Amino acid sequence: MSQETAVMLQSAFRRLKRRPTMQYFTYDRPFRLESGKTLPGFTLAYETYGTLSPARDNVVVIPHALTGDSHCASHFPGDEPGWWEGFVGPGLAIDTDRYFVICANVLGGCQGSTGPASIDPRTGKPYGMRFPMITIGDMVRAQRELLRHLGIEKIRVVVGGSMGGMQTLEWAVAFPEMVEAIVPIATPGRSSPQSIAYNEVGRQAIMADPNWRGGDYYDGEGPDRGLAIARMIGMITYQSDESMWNKFGRELMNATLDELFSFSTQFQVESYLHYQGKKLVERFDANTYLYLTRALDLFDLGRGRGGFKNALSRIRVPTLVIGISSDILYPPYQQKEIVSTLRELGVDAEYAEIDCPYGHDGFLIEAAKVTEILRDFFDRLG
Amino acid sequence: MSQETAVMLQSAFRRLKRRPTMQYFTYDRPFRLESGKTLPGFTLAYETYGTLSPARDNVVVIPHALTGDSHCASHFPGDEPGWWEGFVGPGLAIDTDRYFVICANVLGGCQGSTGPASIDPRTGKPYGMRFPMITIGDMVRAQRELLRHLGIEKIRVVVGGSMGGMQTLEWAVAFPEMVEAIVPIATPGRSSPQSIAYNEVGRQAIMADPNWRGGDYYDGEGPDRGLAIARMIGMITYQSDESMWNKFGRELMNATLDELFSFSTQFQVESYLHYQGKKLVERFDANTYLYLTRALDLFDLGRGRGGFKNALSRIRVPTLVIGISSDILYPPYQQKEIVSTLRELGVDAEYAEIDCPYGHDGFLIEAAKVTEILRDFFDRLG
Repeated sequence: MSQETAVMLQSAFRRLKRRPTMQYFTYDRPFRLESGKTLPGFTLAYETYGTLSPARDNVVVIPHALTGDSHCASHFPGDEPGWWEGFVGPGLAIDTDRYFVICANVLGGCQGSTGPASIDPRTGKPYGMRFPMITIGDMVRAQRELLRHLGIEKIRVVVGGSMGGMQTLEWAVAFPEMVEAIVPIATPGRSSPQSIAYNEVGRQAIMADPNWRGGDYYDGEGPDRGLAIARMIGMITYQSDESMWNKFGRELMNATLDELFSFSTQFQVESYLHYQGKKLVERFDANTYLYLTRALDLFDLGRGRGGFKNALSRIRVPTLVIGISSDILYPPYQQKEIVSTLRELGVDAEYAEIDCPYGHDGFLIEAAKVTEILRDFFDRLG
Repeated sequence: MSQETAVMLQSAFRRLKRRPTMQYFTYDRPFRLESGKTLPGFTLAYETYGTLSPARDNVVVIPHALTGDSHCASHFPGDEPGWWEGFVGPGLAIDTDRYFVICANVLGGCQGSTGPASIDPRTGKPYGMRFPMITIGDMVRAQRELLRHLGIEKIRVVVGGSMGGMQTLEWAVAFPEMVEAIVPIATPGRSSPQSIAYNEVGRQAIMADPNWRGGDYYDGEGPDRGLAIARMIGMITYQSDESMWNKFGRELMNATLDELFSFSTQFQVESYLHYQGKKLVERFDANTYLYLTRALDLFDLGRGRGGFKNALSRIRVPTLVIGISSDILYPPYQQKEIVSTLRELGVDAEYAEIDCPYGHDGFLIEAAKVTEILRDFFDRLG
């Protein structure tokens, strides 16, 4: 390992959890980004599940969502559950008895891959806001280098939700020769202004935190409070009006009606948001939150490709698009638009909707429904 | 004017705009609040439009929304437009040739009425967070005192949207003997957990601002940045996915595609939110934002009245409930619930929906549609 490679593995994110099941791929040459800027190289942390077939033809790539990581499922009894636990494993929807699953932390991430919390080998200091802008396309091209490193040239299926769904679409458009089928879930083909708006409010909350210090906070307190607020906003958009009624209603936390008239008394929904904010802070880097939400905003399959329809025309493979009926972040009309455009282009595209009240997070919750849909699709792929 | 009354008129909110058309009513006795706490007295700033009939039977009360004030319309050519300009005036939906309109800044507000920015006559200092919690019920009871002061015992119609709609419902439930008809617009009968969640994120943004200083900021910089963020969140919920596509799409501000990959480049929707945040800061007090959003959260017509249906059973007058098809903050099902409950109770309640893409703000925008609906209702009232 060269000294530069060793540096690329270093992160200033003190809450980074390096799991024994993580593997690292380091690309130690200049890597040109969509912005025109260049990274001197990068590392991707990844985990694999199942066994690669001798023909290397059973690969499933699972790109993760905004705050996800390479740990989409536990590897052994007692291992920490992954973010898609119950979906990925032996006999499950993404059957690791059959498929070799690769899940990599995205470029720009903070869970072992190179991102703004990483040490810039050119300065020996964390990038912070000097990290170049990353796009969904950059994330996918970095993963493509990982697959090249693993000697993999064909992907049976790319399947992912939310930001993972954007990467899924991008995989098929950017590398049509590699990808044999895709399942984008709860994702748009281009981010809506409303979703950009939510992201911008979160970014402002982080940047307004005095502990953010222009992104150079790695030697001190980070902008925990700002990041928690950003997460709180996010969590609202991942749920729905109905699911919040069901889960919280107007119930109070440890308070009688007499204690209602105080700012310290919380409704259950408030307590929940505070808890979720605090939980994210314990595992996620604020600068990464800035960069990845910006990547979401910039996502537009049609940019630089002669428009949306022209971009989609590169997809020639079976495509199953899954929407969630109650999704307020990336509502079903966005998935339907992808399917109808693909069909106009003569692609074998189908749409399935998960009817549930959980909102965007439904793709992480509705294991039984997603499994049924995925299994049917995988079976038909053969 | 007693010394105490003079103090009650004092506000530490430096951006308070005292208009020549504002009148002041000061209640200079202890005023007991729903919380059980007592204010030593209060002032309401209010404006009136039209002429009170000799029989004092042509009164329309217009309670305002969260960041509204007493200035619902201009009084003369060249006067600053009001927040319901085009709705209130001679020959308009709320016809001031016919009705005597009263619009008062709410208790807890910052536009001339007593609120957290006011000087506590007992200490000579701004209340800040020592101000007692205010509820929608308190706002209405304070306005009832204003009407008593004006010698008014009957209200022809109370009509208001959003927080003004909550006050409208509260008027009919709390003072059924005074109110002859109501038009609550784009309002729930009790706040949803989702709306509480949005408010709490806004409050956290204010409280996280180091310039907030526990609410005692009146002698220095206020939490402008936090309040702006809170406003940005609010503005998202006042619009809709569709209206944001229509207004902003994915267009950039003064930037070419080459400049896209920078945090300083803004999508139009971001620029708009920043502008709206800045604009609110110039006219609104951050502590008031905390108190009034809390009043929204606490709003539940049924509290202390044996439940929602029991509370609504006090309404015996013609009720027109207006919803906005694209409202994501207080969606139409909430207005329909009010109407269906009233109908079960045998009340002459009707529902009208404004079909538009503007979201919650539709009640401020759709003058022609609202006018048509209101005029028909007013005409039938005779």
